[in-house]
Amino acid sequence: MAERVVLAYSGGLDTSVCIGWIAEETGAEVIAVAVDVGQGGEDLDAIRQRALDCGAVEAEVADARQEFADEYCLPALKANALYQGQYPLVSALSRPVIVKHLVAAAQKHGASTVAHGCTGKGNDQVRFEVGINSLAPGLKCIAPVRDYAMTRDKAIAFAEAKNLPIVTTKKNPYSIDQNVFGRAVETGFLEDIWNAPIEDVYEYTQNPADPREADEVVISFEAGVPVAIDGRKVTVLQAIEELNKRAGAQGIGRLDMVEDRLVGIKSREIYEAPGAIALITAHQALENVTVERELARYKRQVEQRWAELVYDGLWFSPLKRALDGFVNEANQSVTGDIRMAMHGGRAVVNGRASQKSLYDFNLATYDTGDTFDQSLSKGFIEIFGMSSKIAAKRDLQG
Amino acid sequence: MAERVVLAYSGGLDTSVCIGWIAEETGAEVIAVAVDVGQGGEDLDAIRQRALDCGAVEAEVADARQEFADEYCLPALKANALYQGQYPLVSALSRPVIVKHLVAAAQKHGASTVAHGCTGKGNDQVRFEVGINSLAPGLKCIAPVRDYAMTRDKAIAFAEAKNLPIVTTKKNPYSIDQNVFGRAVETGFLEDIWNAPIEDVYEYTQNPADPREADEVVISFEAGVPVAIDGRKVTVLQAIEELNKRAGAQGIGRLDMVEDRLVGIKSREIYEAPGAIALITAHQALENVTVERELARYKRQVEQRWAELVYDGLWFSPLKRALDGFVNEANQSVTGDIRMAMHGGRAVVNGRASQKSLYDFNLATYDTGDTFDQSLSKGFIEIFGMSSKIAAKRDLQG
Amino acid sequence: MAERVVLAYSGGLDTSVCIGWIAEETGAEVIAVAVDVGQGGEDLDAIRQRALDCGAVEAEVADARQEFADEYCLPALKANALYQGQYPLVSALSRPVIVKHLVAAAQKHGASTVAHGCTGKGNDQVRFEVGINSLAPGLKCIAPVRDYAMTRDKAIAFAEAKNLPIVTTKKNPYSIDQNVFGRAVETGFLEDIWNAPIEDVYEYTQNPADPREADEVVISFEAGVPVAIDGRKVTVLQAIEELNKRAGAQGIGRLDMVEDRLVGIKSREIYEAPGAIALITAHQALENVTVERELARYKRQVEQRWAELVYDGLWFSPLKRALDGFVNEANQSVTGDIRMAMHGGRAVVNGRASQKSLYDFNLATYDTGDTFDQSLSKGFIEIFGMSSKIAAKRDLQG
Amino acid sequence: MAERVVLAYSGGLDTSVCIGWIAEETGAEVIAVAVDVGQGGEDLDAIRQRALDCGAVEAEVADARQEFADEYCLPALKANALYQGQYPLVSALSRPVIVKHLVAAAQKHGASTVAHGCTGKGNDQVRFEVGINSLAPGLKCIAPVRDYAMTRDKAIAFAEAKNLPIVTTKKNPYSIDQNVFGRAVETGFLEDIWNAPIEDVYEYTQNPADPREADEVVISFEAGVPVAIDGRKVTVLQAIEELNKRAGAQGIGRLDMVEDRLVGIKSREIYEAPGAIALITAHQALENVTVERELARYKRQVEQRWAELVYDGLWFSPLKRALDGFVNEANQSVTGDIRMAMHGGRAVVNGRASQKSLYDFNLATYDTGDTFDQSLSKGFIEIFGMSSKIAAKRDLQG
Repeated sequence: MAERVVLAYSGGLDTSVCIGWIAEETGAEVIAVAVDVGQGGEDLDAIRQRALDCGAVEAEVADARQEFADEYCLPALKANALYQGQYPLVSALSRPVIVKHLVAAAQKHGASTVAHGCTGKGNDQVRFEVGINSLAPGLKCIAPVRDYAMTRDKAIAFAEAKNLPIVTTKKNPYSIDQNVFGRAVETGFLEDIWNAPIEDVYEYTQNPADPREADEVVISFEAGVPVAIDGRKVTVLQAIEELNKRAGAQGIGRLDMVEDRLVGIKSREIYEAPGAIALITAHQALENVTVERELARYKRQVEQRWAELVYDGLWFSPLKRALDGFVNEANQSVTGDIRMAMHGGRAVVNGRASQKSLYDFNLATYDTGDTFDQSLSKGFIEIFGMSSKIAAKRDLQG
Repeated sequence: MAERVVLAYSGGLDTSVCIGWIAEETGAEVIAVAVDVGQGGEDLDAIRQRALDCGAVEAEVADARQEFADEYCLPALKANALYQGQYPLVSALSRPVIVKHLVAAAQKHGASTVAHGCTGKGNDQVRFEVGINSLAPGLKCIAPVRDYAMTRDKAIAFAEAKNLPIVTTKKNPYSIDQNVFGRAVETGFLEDIWNAPIEDVYEYTQNPADPREADEVVISFEAGVPVAIDGRKVTVLQAIEELNKRAGAQGIGRLDMVEDRLVGIKSREIYEAPGAIALITAHQALENVTVERELARYKRQVEQRWAELVYDGLWFSPLKRALDGFVNEANQSVTGDIRMAMHGGRAVVNGRASQKSLYDFNLATYDTGDTFDQSLSKGFIEIFGMSSKIAAKRDLQG
Repeated sequence: MAERVVLAYSGGLDTSVCIGWIAEETGAEVIAVAVDVGQGGEDLDAIRQRALDCGAVEAEVADARQEFADEYCLPALKANALYQGQYPLVSALSRPVIVKHLVAAAQKHGASTVAHGCTGKGNDQVRFEVGINSLAPGLKCIAPVRDYAMTRDKAIAFAEAKNLPIVTTKKNPYSIDQNVFGRAVETGFLEDIWNAPIEDVYEYTQNPADPREADEVVISFEAGVPVAIDGRKVTVLQAIEELNKRAGAQGIGRLDMVEDRLVGIKSREIYEAPGAIALITAHQALENVTVERELARYKRQVEQRWAELVYDGLWFSPLKRALDGFVNEANQSVTGDIRMAMHGGRAVVNGRASQKSLYDFNLATYDTGDTFDQSLSKGFIEIFGMSSKIAAKRDLQG
Repeated sequence: MAERVVLAYSGGLDTSVCIGWIAEETGAEVIAVAVDVGQGGEDLDAIRQRALDCGAVEAEVADARQEFADEYCLPALKANALYQGQYPLVSALSRPVIVKHLVAAAQKHGASTVAHGCTGKGNDQVRFEVGINSLAPGLKCIAPVRDYAMTRDKAIAFAEAKNLPIVTTKKNPYSIDQNVFGRAVETGFLEDIWNAPIEDVYEYTQNPADPREADEVVISFEAGVPVAIDGRKVTVLQAIEELNKRAGAQGIGRLDMVEDRLVGIKSREIYEAPGAIALITAHQALENVTVERELARYKRQVEQRWAELVYDGLWFSPLKRALDGFVNEANQSVTGDIRMAMHGGRAVVNGRASQKSLYDFNLATYDTGDTFDQSLSKGFIEIFGMSSKIAAKRDLQG
């Protein structure tokens, strides 16, 4: 029986060519697997048929949108995960759910190998292969672009020679990856980091400078999970989708950054993540009201490490699981409503309400009703500052 | 000879009344010291005269604006210091420079005590007193509002009874603190955290929703220090002042947050810090280009601790000095230009140029000129993911 | 009906006098509660009777040893909790379990107040009162030594005047606190930090310098919990007790340190914790074999914060709960046997065996059977070091 | 002109064979460079001559002991650097100083390549190559054992065929690396992690169980630097050497651990580092007396990261430099004397004296002279615990 290779299939030129290319390089049968993580675009059935037309012995498509939202985007939201303080991990989150489906298909079809279309200088190759290694340590990984020198020009020539049913237009000037949590754009003229992006690169967001009416939204959370928008119950997927539309219409969630890749280089990236940024903004604001100070301070460090780990492709790692233990516990009381004005590229929280609030009007107010006993402060200050004061006495002696 | 008390004097009702109040409570002579940290408002000479008119035996005024910018705001900028990821420490930064002048005055005038106008439930009392304890462990601290129950109503009555030369209007609905690095507004209807702020509370910033032309600025840094704006050389103070105007005109730097005070309560705070936010945004973007990845990752944690320490009033502490050792070293290569569009409340970096850049076009590009050796990646991925893979093998066995 | 005060009662002079002292100071009825956390010494019934004889309206005794071991010592073991890298939190761990029983008694008996015998300059007053505030925010706390100036001399005079049934010998030269997890000794000539401790201060441990036979022990863990010693099943309490005896007989677990108290001062402390140190040593060694590298690295930081929090009296805090979420997850695979030689004050691990081991002989060996593919290393090294190399290129240009 | 390769030369079989092997594989001229980091053994001149006899076109020897102690061991001591809380980085510290000399030789002799004798599965290959890349990004690196499959058996055959002037005895059962800071032993029967080491593996330390007299030492530090032993002035190198002898004679500094290598595997390592462990123990104890609490708490985290970085071969990295900025500042006041008893494998601090001490007898004592104002504690406790108490109130409501 022939070896079998499961290929992460997108329906585009590169992975369509991969089907035949892998077969030629390895002699294996290729099984194409397409996973819907909300990237939009073509119908899954059309994609499935194209894989078969391009020579796949089997083709599978999976609607993983709900799973992606619930099991990948939601933990990121609970962790307010922003790599380098900015990037909501759009692509980094989708790789593990795709990996899960690839591995399941490999096991179902008795494949020995998983193939993906990544290059050899990005993060995604690491995310795919470390993920696959972690879910199925026995599977091999191949990346035709990296391992078999499948350049774009050669791919076009291959497609034409084999008469593959795909349009081999000139390359899009940008390299794009998108899913329901956001969209990433790179390469082209953006590789000159003095250049500003042009409107042309954006799809999920409108120009924030365009005049329009503000949109006010109330997002309700229960234990860190967005459960309602403006009083209507939503799933996590619906919350992201609705806020993609509404926050996107206000130009919210555009990012332009020079990023530290895991492979050691810096790259210039443009992101759009209107729903993700709107949700994280609201979630952080609700945490400010419901999470105790020392927990909040420590959680910031955990959030940073969580984002780094997931960015670095270590979703299925022991540390990730243990950090989730912390993050889930920390979200237990993140329950309540956030009122947020979305306008002109800004998501501005201006109201918070929570039955789990730690904000105590009577302790905070300077008006009638103040219950804070100010006589306590003198002792607090003296003892709080004592170790510093003792050190100062020593240091002032020179 | 009578005991002497140095009073942190603002020229307003509260501290003007304090002069006589302290004299009555303690029998001491009061020396008023006003420190200009860019809070604007009255002329310093007028303030000085008022202190004398209110009964101070001596009155001193100090223009500490340059010193404040260079020795307090600049370290905060180098540390991208944002408490809770948002607040640029406006008031927290000004306290230590004021403390320094108070202590110097106390030593010059042989005072045994320093007095300030803070209440007993805020952070500033801690910042004043821990700071004073650290610079002069032998000085005593008093706070008439907290220690002698000097309420607003009693202060007005006192001022009228003594015929003090101050206007005793109704209280401003807000409690305000401002300096060149920003402005803080609290209390009043803002104590209901469901209420949005109204335009009325803002002074440093225009409404971001007002239509206007965008303003593009180029900020140049050398080793983390802003040294030029649009090619004109500036001091740190000038950089903050110019960006306060220009970023403020674009509605940049408004913050509305529920904050964790050191004294254990949560409070609602509105801030405006157009210059600070514009500078930090630019500085961070330049760091993304010039700071190596592992240093950048660790620096985020140091930044958080730096901000917490300074927020908590521990400016003059041993840990602060050691963190500065790290932060200064980390800023050595933060040299270059940031091009930033300021518009509609947003400061958007869209160009970076640096002779210290670690962004290498030839390593990053997917176009002609690519020098990244993709064949290295396979080995990297295998070994990078190995500990995770070995753990996965173990864990999959159940 | 009279107010009621629950008193943390030890049976000794100080807390026996407290019964009457509190009654005189407050007019309240005093309920004495003694909690057995393995401190040894007198029979609980005798203690109970003495409380009544000293004037308590009620007296309760609770054997909390099992609970203390399972719910307080065990989490500390899982966190390898060592304050300042040395001190296994002996007293800090016992306070929350005592607090739990005090609060339960206060609720049962309708008391408004809890009293304890601590002074005003130690950590324990904080641990008691913050703990009580966290379990029953409505209860008041009093500490007669601190709040009513109940000095030792006055206590002796009171006891003699009231003819209380307690021996009022001269004060022990040391201040001692002990429980099943260890023993703390302070004050006396030890307050001169140049003085070495003398054998006299130790009770749980023999002199490590005495000649004796080594004792080899095998400790078995399941998910971080010690479950067997030398093959015999044990509870956590039994594990601690047996190792207290055996490790104590070998002089293991003595500590002599200058410690940073929460109240801002440094103090000199002597500890003995033979069982705790033996267990933590074994647990760490098993983690080295069973915990993945990145998890192990991060866990060290979590352990430090855990120890600081518990030392600082924040056992019942939200951050403690979230850190436990991390620690418990991290202990899932800490299963296996540790062989340890105990001798001459040293607990030396020299054998590890685990079905959850991540040590892979075939990857580690340099002998026949080596399965590590060394050809992967070149690519790993290049990419692992790339960000550093790019920075070096920049920095070498000056 | 022929290419030139600089070889890190030890004088032993492997690197002696490398000289000819590299010449045959690459056609290059080989320049042998031996660096003395206190590893003992042969005379440097004999080593130099052997390199020439084995075919090196040039041979250089460098006495780097002083430099190693001052610039590599001392920063580790200031950072109390212990990887995994145990291992004082013996080999990891020597690699960068050797790299410095290799790079200098390559630049002097116009070599294009540096060669070392490491295998492809250890840490040292990474430390050599990342170090070389950082000091001279243009140099190539080769490792004959890894890159040219130069196994031990082939090396012996080569030596015999070429009649090289080296003894080709049977392989030592262990793989050993040693320098003045310690000694590392691995492989052989130690690869079974249930096996205890035997006395045979140790050279720097005597059996701790042997009866002998205790040795008391007083180590004096200035700003973290050991400057005197028992009152005699010493260099850092002399301090390490003397304590290697004296602590080694007491069996101090033996370590047996399962270690997380950078290349993703766990390995079993035996170390002896009597001088290093004695010095770190004393330095930590002096820090406990002279470093303020918050600085001490943060420094522990910095120490851990410092040790990980250096273990991982990133000595010449930007983060290492910035951490040193912190560590040096933190050592400013670490001045004073530590009295330490060394006996039976234990280094026990029992006296500290410092003019920079933060231990204040009058604040710490419970005897006459107590200056701590206990009335301050009530306010401190209430406010310190307030955020926890407010959270508890919320959480108790369910």
